[in-house]
Amino acid sequence: MIRVLVWNEFYHEKTEEQVRSIYPDGIHAAIADFLGKEEDITVRCAHLGMESCGITKEVLDETDVLIWWGHMKHGDVPDEVANLVRDAVLDGMGAIFLHSAHHSKPFKALMGTSCNLTWRESGDSEILWVIDPAHPITRGIDRFFRLSGEETYGEPFVIPNPDKVLLIGNYSGGEVFRSGVLYERGNGKIFYFQPGHETFPTFYNESVQLIIKNAVRFVAPTYRATVTCPHVRTVNDESYVI
Amino acid sequence: MIRVLVWNEFYHEKTEEQVRSIYPDGIHAAIADFLGKEEDITVRCAHLGMESCGITKEVLDETDVLIWWGHMKHGDVPDEVANLVRDAVLDGMGAIFLHSAHHSKPFKALMGTSCNLTWRESGDSEILWVIDPAHPITRGIDRFFRLSGEETYGEPFVIPNPDKVLLIGNYSGGEVFRSGVLYERGNGKIFYFQPGHETFPTFYNESVQLIIKNAVRFVAPTYRATVTCPHVRTVNDESYVI
Amino acid sequence: MIRVLVWNEFYHEKTEEQVRSIYPDGIHAAIADFLGKEEDITVRCAHLGMESCGITKEVLDETDVLIWWGHMKHGDVPDEVANLVRDAVLDGMGAIFLHSAHHSKPFKALMGTSCNLTWRESGDSEILWVIDPAHPITRGIDRFFRLSGEETYGEPFVIPNPDKVLLIGNYSGGEVFRSGVLYERGNGKIFYFQPGHETFPTFYNESVQLIIKNAVRFVAPTYRATVTCPHVRTVNDESYVI
Amino acid sequence: MIRVLVWNEFYHEKTEEQVRSIYPDGIHAAIADFLGKEEDITVRCAHLGMESCGITKEVLDETDVLIWWGHMKHGDVPDEVANLVRDAVLDGMGAIFLHSAHHSKPFKALMGTSCNLTWRESGDSEILWVIDPAHPITRGIDRFFRLSGEETYGEPFVIPNPDKVLLIGNYSGGEVFRSGVLYERGNGKIFYFQPGHETFPTFYNESVQLIIKNAVRFVAPTYRATVTCPHVRTVNDESYVI
Repeated sequence: MIRVLVWNEFYHEKTEEQVRSIYPDGIHAAIADFLGKEEDITVRCAHLGMESCGITKEVLDETDVLIWWGHMKHGDVPDEVANLVRDAVLDGMGAIFLHSAHHSKPFKALMGTSCNLTWRESGDSEILWVIDPAHPITRGIDRFFRLSGEETYGEPFVIPNPDKVLLIGNYSGGEVFRSGVLYERGNGKIFYFQPGHETFPTFYNESVQLIIKNAVRFVAPTYRATVTCPHVRTVNDESYVI
Repeated sequence: MIRVLVWNEFYHEKTEEQVRSIYPDGIHAAIADFLGKEEDITVRCAHLGMESCGITKEVLDETDVLIWWGHMKHGDVPDEVANLVRDAVLDGMGAIFLHSAHHSKPFKALMGTSCNLTWRESGDSEILWVIDPAHPITRGIDRFFRLSGEETYGEPFVIPNPDKVLLIGNYSGGEVFRSGVLYERGNGKIFYFQPGHETFPTFYNESVQLIIKNAVRFVAPTYRATVTCPHVRTVNDESYVI
Repeated sequence: MIRVLVWNEFYHEKTEEQVRSIYPDGIHAAIADFLGKEEDITVRCAHLGMESCGITKEVLDETDVLIWWGHMKHGDVPDEVANLVRDAVLDGMGAIFLHSAHHSKPFKALMGTSCNLTWRESGDSEILWVIDPAHPITRGIDRFFRLSGEETYGEPFVIPNPDKVLLIGNYSGGEVFRSGVLYERGNGKIFYFQPGHETFPTFYNESVQLIIKNAVRFVAPTYRATVTCPHVRTVNDESYVI
Repeated sequence: MIRVLVWNEFYHEKTEEQVRSIYPDGIHAAIADFLGKEEDITVRCAHLGMESCGITKEVLDETDVLIWWGHMKHGDVPDEVANLVRDAVLDGMGAIFLHSAHHSKPFKALMGTSCNLTWRESGDSEILWVIDPAHPITRGIDRFFRLSGEETYGEPFVIPNPDKVLLIGNYSGGEVFRSGVLYERGNGKIFYFQPGHETFPTFYNESVQLIIKNAVRFVAPTYRATVTCPHVRTVNDESYVI
């Protein structure tokens, strides 16, 4: 069983009628709903309004894959929480950052860059192209899929050169964006996935759901341990000690 | 002085009136023309019709950067010539492969993959986006530039994961393509640049010319030597011999 | 079931008494022996002396992972056979190249470089260090393992920058070597593993066996298809045709 | 002129006689001394004892390349100072982190990982091997150079997969270490270089000095600008506004 924790800022859904009409129980609930139907996945949710954002070391220790959605309230997440997430990823926990989570504290901490990008809300449609058809995360997607509406994200996207670019988006307004990128940091795998603006029903799209389900399975850890900074004796003593 | 050799298949220009009207002296001549105006660059040309395609070890030894354009006649380039080019790149010679040279023998030999892609000639326009604004090859280009017509190239493009993706193209027909990608192989640098279909005046475009000029300077070698497979004595003998 | 084909040049074992005493039935037999004991693996063998080296398209179509050992007779492998192997890897077949297979035709074709390195046979011992403890290929290996004797391989090793360096070797004579490197090319995964000189009983070493078993499972394909170069209609016609 | 700022913690030199005897004016002074003799380099120094560690936005704006040495007092560098350094690198400033600066706040912030490693002070000698002989940073170094004494650093080194591994160290005690690694983050280049323990005269070694001089020239910016997160109008309006 892969233990997923879906974290949502859960702000727009309470303050904007348009968003509430799409995600009445929150974006996290919509994601938890389709993931929870998978036989090999169990889901819990957490959000900004909970104590410690619902994120403690104990919670993360029982989480195989963390999914993160945030937008306007990145600054309200305490640094300590962001650091707990970063450290859990370095130990091996998988992480999926969705859409505007590009600017979330834990994603930026793991990337080491500003994660800035160019953006526009103008009703563009988007075609997402599969760059790597053999990758487990894009399995089951044909050569491309469409979203009839999404916030436009544009390059340059200030991220480290990805280990793999799995998807590139083409917006009707003319932009392109590296919409699915994969990293390994420490023992953990990280997937950033661009779709998911709160004013569109993106998380009900079957292709988006398939990619997130695939990604959960791909970033789930098979190994988890803290790599420390040990003082060692020499290997040639035949008594190598950490 | 950077010594550039522009190699062209030089076939379409002699057999198709439309192409001849755009490039009356050949695509190579158009490229040589704008490069030859640079104070730090000297240019020679070669083409398929010359003996040994105009490519010998001696010619390559006097070449800092080889630019290659080919399309229909890739198979007419002898394997020996392709191997000479590959080996010169591994020694340090810079190489720029343009447009349909993605399927040329030397490019495929250096990549190790099929270099297959998806394509269409339907009059799409293209917007090329700068992914890395700090890179010397994209210097002087604003956030994007346009080509009013180009052959459409689409993903998946079967190349090794690039060292750097510098440009991504957005076609009006909906595709995206990694249009400027950079590799190091052995001691040499390789730049693949997608624009340049023979039926469009692409090589007269100022942004295309700027990128090619920048690329010539970037891939030009500062070091050139064959890395062999030497039998050595131990370094701890204080008499390390290659 | 993962279908493995172990390919061996099978030359030293027939011409050198020292090698025969270590691998009386050939290096391939020793590898097939420990792989064949795994419940999820079936093994066949092929060697240079067989018709077409025992490699045909039909054979490769029924092979999930090809393991290759060669040394003195690389040139005797026909280019056609090397190309079949390369194309099968690009379609998704996994490949493991052992020791002096760094200079084999299929490995060089997939890398696009000379794959030259520095070498010495002087009885060095080697310590192989795990660089990536979370990777499935190094799972079960502690921080390092030792080989009391191996041929020394040294840098520079003229390969493309690996997708991942999993192991680095330290030789008692002073050299270092990137001893376990991983690539993806097309749909296929490639693992190069340095140990395995014919005059040492390396393939009886438990750590070496574990890494090869791990690698078989890691490079085994989950997707296999030829990515062609299709002429397409525009995606916006709603009739995208490949 | 490349404007270098050498930053040193400047602690061991004031508290340990052994260190003071090697670097009587501080490690920064020794580095500034050999860099200052280069015609294309000007050097300033800063250290932990200065107001704001000697690091302000104004100082960094006038710095092309920052060299950082720290060890015991990483925690005394305010987060604000580390963030200024990180942001300047993302804008294009070059950075060279020496030895135990692997655990400095700005390096860790840029890497996004723990940067943990294994270590031992046991008088090992080290042979540093050139992995990429064509790279400007290793230019002028033969196949390897030796340090008769250095602190031993061992793998795993918890860093992102480097853009390039330029040097690998072989310690007499048996370890290996990726001793020279290169990254690009945002518009900036980052070089980490392992030698330089305070109890050894490493910074007087000619090969170490050559590599640092080469690295200063390589990481010096040719472009420097903050990449922001602009709200844009559509490119197809012909009025693209950032």
